[in-house]
Amino acid sequence: MDEEIRLDPSLTPFFNPQGIALIGASANPNKLGYALARNLIQGNYPGAIYFVNPKGGSLLGRKVYTNILEVPEPVDLAILLVPAPYIPNLLRDCGRRGISAAIIGAGGFRETGEAGAALEEECVAIARKYFIRLLGPNCIGIMDTHLPLDATFLPPPPPRPGDVAFVSHSGAIIAAVVDWARGQDLGLSRLISLGNQADICEADVLAPLALDAHTRVITLYLEGVRDGRRFVREAAKVARVKPIVALKVGRFASGQRAVASHTGALAGRESAFNAAFWRAGVIRAETSEEMFDWARALAWSPLPKGRSIAILTSAGGPGVTAADALEANGMRLAELKPETVARLRQILPAAASFYNPVDMLATATPEQYAACLQAMLEDGGVHGALVIVPPLPMQAAGAIAKALIPVIYNSDKPVAITLMGDRLIQEAIEHFRAARIPEYRFPERAASALAILAQRADFLARPVVDPQPVEDIDREKVERLLRPYLEEAKASGTTVPLPTEVVAQILEAYGIPTLAVQLVRTAQEAVQVAERMGYPVVLKVASTTVTHKSDIGGVLLNLLDADSVAQGFEVVLQNVSRAYPEAEVEGVYLQRMLPLGQEVIVGAIQDEQFGALVMFGSGGVEVEALRDVGFALAPITDHEIEHLLSTTWAGRRLCGYRNLPPADRQAVVEVLRRVAQLAADFPQLAEIEINPLKVFEEGKGATAIDVRARVKGESSSSA
Amino acid sequence: MDEEIRLDPSLTPFFNPQGIALIGASANPNKLGYALARNLIQGNYPGAIYFVNPKGGSLLGRKVYTNILEVPEPVDLAILLVPAPYIPNLLRDCGRRGISAAIIGAGGFRETGEAGAALEEECVAIARKYFIRLLGPNCIGIMDTHLPLDATFLPPPPPRPGDVAFVSHSGAIIAAVVDWARGQDLGLSRLISLGNQADICEADVLAPLALDAHTRVITLYLEGVRDGRRFVREAAKVARVKPIVALKVGRFASGQRAVASHTGALAGRESAFNAAFWRAGVIRAETSEEMFDWARALAWSPLPKGRSIAILTSAGGPGVTAADALEANGMRLAELKPETVARLRQILPAAASFYNPVDMLATATPEQYAACLQAMLEDGGVHGALVIVPPLPMQAAGAIAKALIPVIYNSDKPVAITLMGDRLIQEAIEHFRAARIPEYRFPERAASALAILAQRADFLARPVVDPQPVEDIDREKVERLLRPYLEEAKASGTTVPLPTEVVAQILEAYGIPTLAVQLVRTAQEAVQVAERMGYPVVLKVASTTVTHKSDIGGVLLNLLDADSVAQGFEVVLQNVSRAYPEAEVEGVYLQRMLPLGQEVIVGAIQDEQFGALVMFGSGGVEVEALRDVGFALAPITDHEIEHLLSTTWAGRRLCGYRNLPPADRQAVVEVLRRVAQLAADFPQLAEIEINPLKVFEEGKGATAIDVRARVKGESSSSA
Repeated sequence: MDEEIRLDPSLTPFFNPQGIALIGASANPNKLGYALARNLIQGNYPGAIYFVNPKGGSLLGRKVYTNILEVPEPVDLAILLVPAPYIPNLLRDCGRRGISAAIIGAGGFRETGEAGAALEEECVAIARKYFIRLLGPNCIGIMDTHLPLDATFLPPPPPRPGDVAFVSHSGAIIAAVVDWARGQDLGLSRLISLGNQADICEADVLAPLALDAHTRVITLYLEGVRDGRRFVREAAKVARVKPIVALKVGRFASGQRAVASHTGALAGRESAFNAAFWRAGVIRAETSEEMFDWARALAWSPLPKGRSIAILTSAGGPGVTAADALEANGMRLAELKPETVARLRQILPAAASFYNPVDMLATATPEQYAACLQAMLEDGGVHGALVIVPPLPMQAAGAIAKALIPVIYNSDKPVAITLMGDRLIQEAIEHFRAARIPEYRFPERAASALAILAQRADFLARPVVDPQPVEDIDREKVERLLRPYLEEAKASGTTVPLPTEVVAQILEAYGIPTLAVQLVRTAQEAVQVAERMGYPVVLKVASTTVTHKSDIGGVLLNLLDADSVAQGFEVVLQNVSRAYPEAEVEGVYLQRMLPLGQEVIVGAIQDEQFGALVMFGSGGVEVEALRDVGFALAPITDHEIEHLLSTTWAGRRLCGYRNLPPADRQAVVEVLRRVAQLAADFPQLAEIEINPLKVFEEGKGATAIDVRARVKGESSSSA
Repeated sequence: MDEEIRLDPSLTPFFNPQGIALIGASANPNKLGYALARNLIQGNYPGAIYFVNPKGGSLLGRKVYTNILEVPEPVDLAILLVPAPYIPNLLRDCGRRGISAAIIGAGGFRETGEAGAALEEECVAIARKYFIRLLGPNCIGIMDTHLPLDATFLPPPPPRPGDVAFVSHSGAIIAAVVDWARGQDLGLSRLISLGNQADICEADVLAPLALDAHTRVITLYLEGVRDGRRFVREAAKVARVKPIVALKVGRFASGQRAVASHTGALAGRESAFNAAFWRAGVIRAETSEEMFDWARALAWSPLPKGRSIAILTSAGGPGVTAADALEANGMRLAELKPETVARLRQILPAAASFYNPVDMLATATPEQYAACLQAMLEDGGVHGALVIVPPLPMQAAGAIAKALIPVIYNSDKPVAITLMGDRLIQEAIEHFRAARIPEYRFPERAASALAILAQRADFLARPVVDPQPVEDIDREKVERLLRPYLEEAKASGTTVPLPTEVVAQILEAYGIPTLAVQLVRTAQEAVQVAERMGYPVVLKVASTTVTHKSDIGGVLLNLLDADSVAQGFEVVLQNVSRAYPEAEVEGVYLQRMLPLGQEVIVGAIQDEQFGALVMFGSGGVEVEALRDVGFALAPITDHEIEHLLSTTWAGRRLCGYRNLPPADRQAVVEVLRRVAQLAADFPQLAEIEINPLKVFEEGKGATAIDVRARVKGESSSSA
């Protein structure tokens, strides 16, 4: 896969500049232009550094040029730390000077309203003209702790060099994370503040980080994505090489769109993000702490070959907490083999617990910790370990750390440490951090980190597959069918519902079976229709005035041949006229007799950022209340279909449940593929929803019973 | 309520001892007997301290007595730090010496197996004989930072005096929490290590903490409770006076009981704990961090009068994160009044965001922080505030803290602070902690703390109600009905299912409507039964060989009078014999015609720790998969019924949903009360489950359609 990840050469000056010009360098220590100048110098950046300020003079022992045009070679990156209105002219100067990359720190652009947006557009136009790539505006810059380069105005010292890259839409979050990381002694590799993303966006920086030798994990703070499908493509490539953990915020702003379908109502923006992250293998964190907890484990630990974890502790309570947390995170407690238990018995006193969680008691020594962990890691049924070190009355945590580290190093299984306490464990923390072994204060955190390693292993085990196009479809027919309604929608500026018979024809064109119901008025017509539909069929009186149709003989089920249909037609009408002489009867409805089956919902909508999305789950009128649904990007891969079917109750139930027989799961797979293809082929199809799709027993297929669809005049962005 | 909380005088020596004798005091610094002696002295305990060791000599400048009998007055608390086998004799000595309270630190009792359990029993018997109360064994002791008293062997220094009491079953957790609290600078009031709870248990220590002037919040680390109902009674009293936050572990051990009903399968131990905590008003934390995060807010903040929160920030990203987190925690973003927005406009630059979240931009000053927060807190629609202080380029967080503190002090609304970062915010952290204002590193934590304050306010607003006994029941009849099956169960040693007709009679005796289905063999009998049941009725052929009964006329609905029933009986039999001449027909089933309705499940089981539990939720065959159920203790209060109905979809749906009409909610309330009363009255009734209970439209009642019940020979513990 690596060869697919290519660095856009126009981005090189940001990550490996030959020379940097700081425009707006200032001698006033209260100005950001001073802070950035100081960081460039004190950060030991090995390339050329030039300061520019119309006032000239000198700064930090260096000459200050009055104009960028005077600056000598080499210079390929300009940092503009001047108020917004000055930026366009200075950008032009940079272009004339041959500078190909610029970081615009100032705010006062799109984030402030229309005038600012216009100014931002002007900058983008100038940059295009001179082939300058832009980072920002409204950003705090870029940092590489290994190069090293500190092109930010953050207060010193910078975070220490490490393995985790951090990319953020929010500059304030970067400032907070840098300070917090220093306090936690968390090493970082690169920091990128994206700001308003006038040019460079989140999808652009993934490849440079994937190719950075010092970055082992990429963390993202996202407030949205600029081009959903491009982000998915880039992230999917990069995630195969390095883990990506994303904190996506902005749920509360997802807003209340006016929607007609359950699918639309259930699909917040988050559904699209979750579907996109799942496809790309991006790990979604709910909180900033989770993101960095996971990042350390992902950067430093081998991946487990399964979900069975052994717990080693010297106190019962935290062992139980860890076991709870593992189970809550989808992991299992490993069952230790008899030979492992025998080894533990040789190491530990008789009163210890020899079964997982293994509790060595408060008398545990560093040697016991090491020997027990070794025995447990050598057990073939153990895929990883969680070791708990509470404050012990007789042992220093530091000594336990020193004993454990070689055992952990010599194993190819992940081990997460819980060091409980604070002051008493400082030395142990330092040992583990230096050894790049992830440690946490609470068992819950360690359990969550192990679960993320398992999730990462699952992703890497998933073969790379692209959605397979569905072949036997009639796309032109759907185009023809949609045309009049698209025109209507365009004219009205709203979405337009499609008539039932049109929806049925669309599904037919995409090979999705629907239940045809036809009104017949004569016995002869009934036989003709039945012959076309295939037997068995059902006859039901068509009358709005007759209720309890079954009880008066107004419904005949399971008619197997033409004779029965012809006879049955007359019988139904006779039964009804006998029971209700005054009833208004329009004729008789004829439909295929449906066997018993399970009911599910299959829908699709168009998401603003990610295009076509398909939904699957428990259908019926209560679909919005039960929320037993999942979403995937369309067109859909076989893995995504399996994921939808295995993570919803509606999907699991297809395999049978108690006295509910198994249903035709493969038929659902086909319907999902085809609905997804339809939604991907027609971005104008704002919503389509089959509710219910009736799924018969194995081999008997599935049929759409009720279907609604709407088109919109303008097609939204799509793949 | 306060007057109901009484301190058991026999516990006084633990919390306010006149004199303490440490038996097992040691001059060897590697022994726990040394550590405890040192803590007693260095902890500045103001009462008498005596050391006892058969070797005699002196320790820390004090005489070591060779025997407890030699120790002079005053001494009312003995601490026994000697190996387990020596404890019984020493306890006897304590008894003879007139000591009325003992802490047994040693392990080697019940936790190690049968021999240890016997030794523990022996100690309890001795203690009873001499009227000695016991804490432990297998515990690390007791601490009161205000008295002060440090009767633990934890390494110094002790945590600083504070407002939060911590009670734990696990000694290791206490050691870890003390060290962690020191690192976090979290003040604690009292620490109690319960150990094996041979005598004093978690329910005993709640009252002493409720009456402790220095304790503002009680935190519990529980691995179970010894007497469920007593814990609920004590906690319910105490929680009215002081918040109780509990971390309950041990879920993974909940085990796989063999159960016959959905109710049994769905009720892990956790359901009982959640039901008990809800009744008692105990706040359940999922992690240790959460517990202490919440404890600080509960100890220091006024309670909000509603759930509308204003966010004040100087960076957009964290503001969005906070808004997300508030919403995820069931809080709302307050809508600021126009006059508040106008005030903010006077304070802030035009580019700021004046609507919640209010974003002051990175140029925010301490004065702006203070003025904006004041304006927001004075808005009548705001019930509390979340203030975010990211690292600002131009301002010290400490100065912002100093400006905010008086505003927060002068308001009666809660404010949670998010100080982002680490090193740059140390001064601000110290200011807020000194001012007892809760601050967190991440917006998610602050949002969660505000939500807990709202939850606490909800609990206090809930009137104190006891379950009302159901009057019109026939308890004796049920006793009679159960008797033969209880004997059978006792004889067999298993649970025994009750026959359908017995279950129906039991429900009838408790006033729970059931659907009666009766087999009739003649038209005359059919009319008699129908007259008794009431019209309309349904007739259905009783035959195991006839399928599709409706289609061949084997079912007649909605028969309104005796004539229709008599005629209908013959019609059904004729229809069947015409369609299936060879069918075996046992007769005709007669039942009341049921209108359309919603289906729910109502069940009850007996929990080992908490006794009778009642369950409500979505019924049907998929009940275990959907898990839309809630549990409450039985008998049940009206508030608990409302809670069950409002927290399950099955309950909310009773008010109607889309084209589903409202159902008879009051009828469900009645059934819940009566099933709960039944389960509470008969602990021998191992399980009873109505699935479905059909609920008709408003005013039309509800009827149990299918009911199963089992009895067991031995009644478990119950209220």
